[in-house]
Amino acid sequence: MNDKTSTPVTVIGLGLMGQALAGALLKAGRPTTVWNRTTSKADQLVADGAHLAPTVGEAIKAGSAAILCVTDYEAVHELLGASDVELEGTTLINLTSGDSTQARETARWARERGARYLDGAIMAIPATIGTPDGIILTSGPKPDFEAHEATLAELGVATYLGEDAGLASLYDVAGLAMMWSVLNAWLQGTAMLRTAGVDAATYAPFAQQIAVGVADWLPGYAEQIDRGSFPAEVATLETEARAIGHLVEEAEAVGVNAELPKLIKAMADRAIAAGHGGEQYPVLIEEFARPGS
Amino acid sequence: MNDKTSTPVTVIGLGLMGQALAGALLKAGRPTTVWNRTTSKADQLVADGAHLAPTVGEAIKAGSAAILCVTDYEAVHELLGASDVELEGTTLINLTSGDSTQARETARWARERGARYLDGAIMAIPATIGTPDGIILTSGPKPDFEAHEATLAELGVATYLGEDAGLASLYDVAGLAMMWSVLNAWLQGTAMLRTAGVDAATYAPFAQQIAVGVADWLPGYAEQIDRGSFPAEVATLETEARAIGHLVEEAEAVGVNAELPKLIKAMADRAIAAGHGGEQYPVLIEEFARPGS
Repeated sequence: MNDKTSTPVTVIGLGLMGQALAGALLKAGRPTTVWNRTTSKADQLVADGAHLAPTVGEAIKAGSAAILCVTDYEAVHELLGASDVELEGTTLINLTSGDSTQARETARWARERGARYLDGAIMAIPATIGTPDGIILTSGPKPDFEAHEATLAELGVATYLGEDAGLASLYDVAGLAMMWSVLNAWLQGTAMLRTAGVDAATYAPFAQQIAVGVADWLPGYAEQIDRGSFPAEVATLETEARAIGHLVEEAEAVGVNAELPKLIKAMADRAIAAGHGGEQYPVLIEEFARPGS
Repeated sequence: MNDKTSTPVTVIGLGLMGQALAGALLKAGRPTTVWNRTTSKADQLVADGAHLAPTVGEAIKAGSAAILCVTDYEAVHELLGASDVELEGTTLINLTSGDSTQARETARWARERGARYLDGAIMAIPATIGTPDGIILTSGPKPDFEAHEATLAELGVATYLGEDAGLASLYDVAGLAMMWSVLNAWLQGTAMLRTAGVDAATYAPFAQQIAVGVADWLPGYAEQIDRGSFPAEVATLETEARAIGHLVEEAEAVGVNAELPKLIKAMADRAIAAGHGGEQYPVLIEEFARPGS
């Protein structure tokens, strides 16, 4: 299949995100068909040139690919399982939020019905769709990604992760875990420094510099994990654990929340108890890889 | 006081870090006096041109400033409290590890004895002392920092934080909290993706990109904290909490540790229970600022 700027695309589901997706396609000059249960949500898009299909079946027929952005995977199955929907030969690009198990099951379900299937996750807010700040994660068969790469590129930075349909969801939550962790660590530091009269704006550039500096270590530390060997080139886990202890004590002494420092300490202490005190921090992968207490 | 390359400096405490500090000063051509309880630790430094003082008192007399890098603050008091040590008119730059309370108490103690006092924290390993990767945090009276800024610059990137002697320790642990949090979030994601056969090296650049991107938001979010106003410009905390729930469920479904995801969720849930569900993530500062359960 050829993916050109003239290739028609369908968007099913017109919440705020679905509207942003269809809007970006229209702005790029794509013939765009839309469907939503409540048709009034299509009003602005129709005014901007979208074609409103009367049924999901006709919406899917109209596009070379159908982008799905609905409430959840149950809604995907309910809409696509209707008797008038023909999936044979279509391509589904499912950007609905869900987990890796749902993504893999839906991929299997769609393929059994003769559809090509890509699963995706949107790391963006509606306002950044169609800009370099909108990341569209996708996983599934590579030829299917390549066939629709130009369409996905209209929506943001289209990133292909691999054949396993579950990868987009996994990368999504892993990336979000990083996001919340950077924010929480910054809030922890901000809370501590405010007890000494330092305002958040004064501390923020320092926290930013540390986060960027540490992020730069990850590729090197990743090699240790892939080799399964953690020589203490920088510092031993035991040395780090003493410093983590200082963090816990300082948080308690200045009277702020100490739960995050205590969790950092608990994970390190467990790795030391397992005999890894003389190794380097990334050896904690063994603790993160198994269900905790 | 004039701080030139010819100004003599003293280093007290010659563990691995103290040796690195004295070594960097010698390399920069500074007349350097050293002292350590076990004198053999000075052997290499003496061979490189350092003067070994026989007592702490004489070591302090020899330098325009004395850099202290010993085991802990008790050792600082024990060494400087000896009867032959004259502190009147000296400058102490205490780079010994400790907390903000110890730093403030020691500043008071030193000033009562007529000494100028800067407290510091070293965000570096011995190998990066004297390089742009070695960060030397300092706090105390600004004129005292300025008088010795050139000396501190020989040791790494000298950063002045403010008058309060406790700030260096607070920034130090806050920065370390960021470091461990970035590493832990990356380990969490790595553990999850390895269940899908993705190796650590494949995931690391993605995690790095997210960390750097989120770090870039901190100065803007800091303004919300300083204003005490958290309008949901990007997403409401309630929306974020649903996504955090997906992270917890995914971690449990793939069988890895879920304690970090659960802590992220607990903090967000508490802020929502306190009525902040319609505000933006940094409103969590209120949870981080008070002792937890």
